[in-house]
Amino acid sequence: MKKIKSIKCFDSDVDFWEHDSKSTKTKMRFSSFAPNKEVKSCIIWLSGLTCNEENFMIKANSQKILSKTNTMIICPDTSPRGLNLAGEHDSWDFGSAASFYVDASTENYKNNYLMFSYINDELYQLVKSFFSVTKISIFGHSMGGHGALISALKRPDQYQSVSAFAPIANPVNCPWGQKAFRGYLGDDKNLWHQYDSCSLINQGKIFKDTILIDQGTTDEFLHEQLLVENFESCCKQNHQSLKVNYREGYDHSYYFISTFIEDHIKFHQERLS
Amino acid sequence: MKKIKSIKCFDSDVDFWEHDSKSTKTKMRFSSFAPNKEVKSCIIWLSGLTCNEENFMIKANSQKILSKTNTMIICPDTSPRGLNLAGEHDSWDFGSAASFYVDASTENYKNNYLMFSYINDELYQLVKSFFSVTKISIFGHSMGGHGALISALKRPDQYQSVSAFAPIANPVNCPWGQKAFRGYLGDDKNLWHQYDSCSLINQGKIFKDTILIDQGTTDEFLHEQLLVENFESCCKQNHQSLKVNYREGYDHSYYFISTFIEDHIKFHQERLS
Repeated sequence: MKKIKSIKCFDSDVDFWEHDSKSTKTKMRFSSFAPNKEVKSCIIWLSGLTCNEENFMIKANSQKILSKTNTMIICPDTSPRGLNLAGEHDSWDFGSAASFYVDASTENYKNNYLMFSYINDELYQLVKSFFSVTKISIFGHSMGGHGALISALKRPDQYQSVSAFAPIANPVNCPWGQKAFRGYLGDDKNLWHQYDSCSLINQGKIFKDTILIDQGTTDEFLHEQLLVENFESCCKQNHQSLKVNYREGYDHSYYFISTFIEDHIKFHQERLS
Repeated sequence: MKKIKSIKCFDSDVDFWEHDSKSTKTKMRFSSFAPNKEVKSCIIWLSGLTCNEENFMIKANSQKILSKTNTMIICPDTSPRGLNLAGEHDSWDFGSAASFYVDASTENYKNNYLMFSYINDELYQLVKSFFSVTKISIFGHSMGGHGALISALKRPDQYQSVSAFAPIANPVNCPWGQKAFRGYLGDDKNLWHQYDSCSLINQGKIFKDTILIDQGTTDEFLHEQLLVENFESCCKQNHQSLKVNYREGYDHSYYFISTFIEDHIKFHQERLS
């Protein structure tokens, strides 16, 4: 693993790392910020469509909040890079920067787009071994909110807590999710349901603690793409504890995330300490 | 004046505005953030090379701090837009997004690149009339730090206080400044010295209060382009009160700005209230 850049911020460093990934068979990048004191836990942040490993670090202003804690943060990139698979770079909502954090099974993507395994096996183990933390939580935004939810529901023992900002909460029923799942998983809908938060809840998967979601009420993607209301219904029916904060007048942007990031970090902090 | 976008953030709005400018004879854009309470004062932020009216708003995380005050912030764009003057778009450090906040006098730029007048006459009056604030301060980063310093030194009665992050503090003696001043002001060095902070101090211009500067010690531009040490010498010789905080290990980026933005806002707050 190689540190490729280190930028001082709030008396510590935002570090950028590159390592060879077994899951994606490419180099993968992530950023990290650890407060300048003994680090005891970690939160993994999964970013949304079009993002890379830097967006959260430069826009969410988590560092000031984290600098007062014993918790570090890790922000992986949103897809493998440096490949030229057929169609991979043709659209902003599929392929590069749009992995949807699934393990692809289609011929074209199955060798590299194993992002569920990358996050939940490879990066997870790397965080534990390289950064010597034992307690790990996960959160994310939009596509990354979806990634955080499915990670926690499929691997409930790995994560202390999970939260999301404006997650794509029912991808099998929205255009973004359907496009991605068809491209990465093919036509077998049974496979799709293994990566859909609502389907996982309906299949009886339960996360041991309350799931926290913040959602802007004027988010332009809420009713067509995110479908947070569907996730609410599934959680209610299946007795999954869930807290959704609908935030009046907020949109889908980092202006929204930066406003409520402190609440989410505190939520995870309480469960990590 | 037209509001072109409004995004909720910390219980108020980041607004984006467009208006016809008499100074530049183009439309000009700026962003604003006013806390959700009675606003009594304003700080104008001038951005650096390559920036537009959004960079500060999305990266500096000033909104959380401002939301607890009675002070609004205004971030103008860094040059006129929508023109196609000869050479205007050829380099990142001259022309579009690189006005250097001077009133150009060269044939090619004198009709539109009147950014000193735009900031200190037009935008300044607009802030007073449209937003009904009386007390105004100014700060900025890099090229914008230079802009803030010359604005306050040339118009000391207009501003309550001035501060800068990593300003281009002696442009007549650095490559960025020399390129810009030759392009906007021609070969008459007397004209250059009217827009150089060190020259202004040496000419006897004095700002009535302490000038605050924060400067990262590992800023890659410090010794060739920024020359903050020259400004320190001039201020010392001419009894201009100046506080330079050299910040060990910090660079030129928004990671540096976001770390110390609260100090600067508090500095201005104290002088605005």
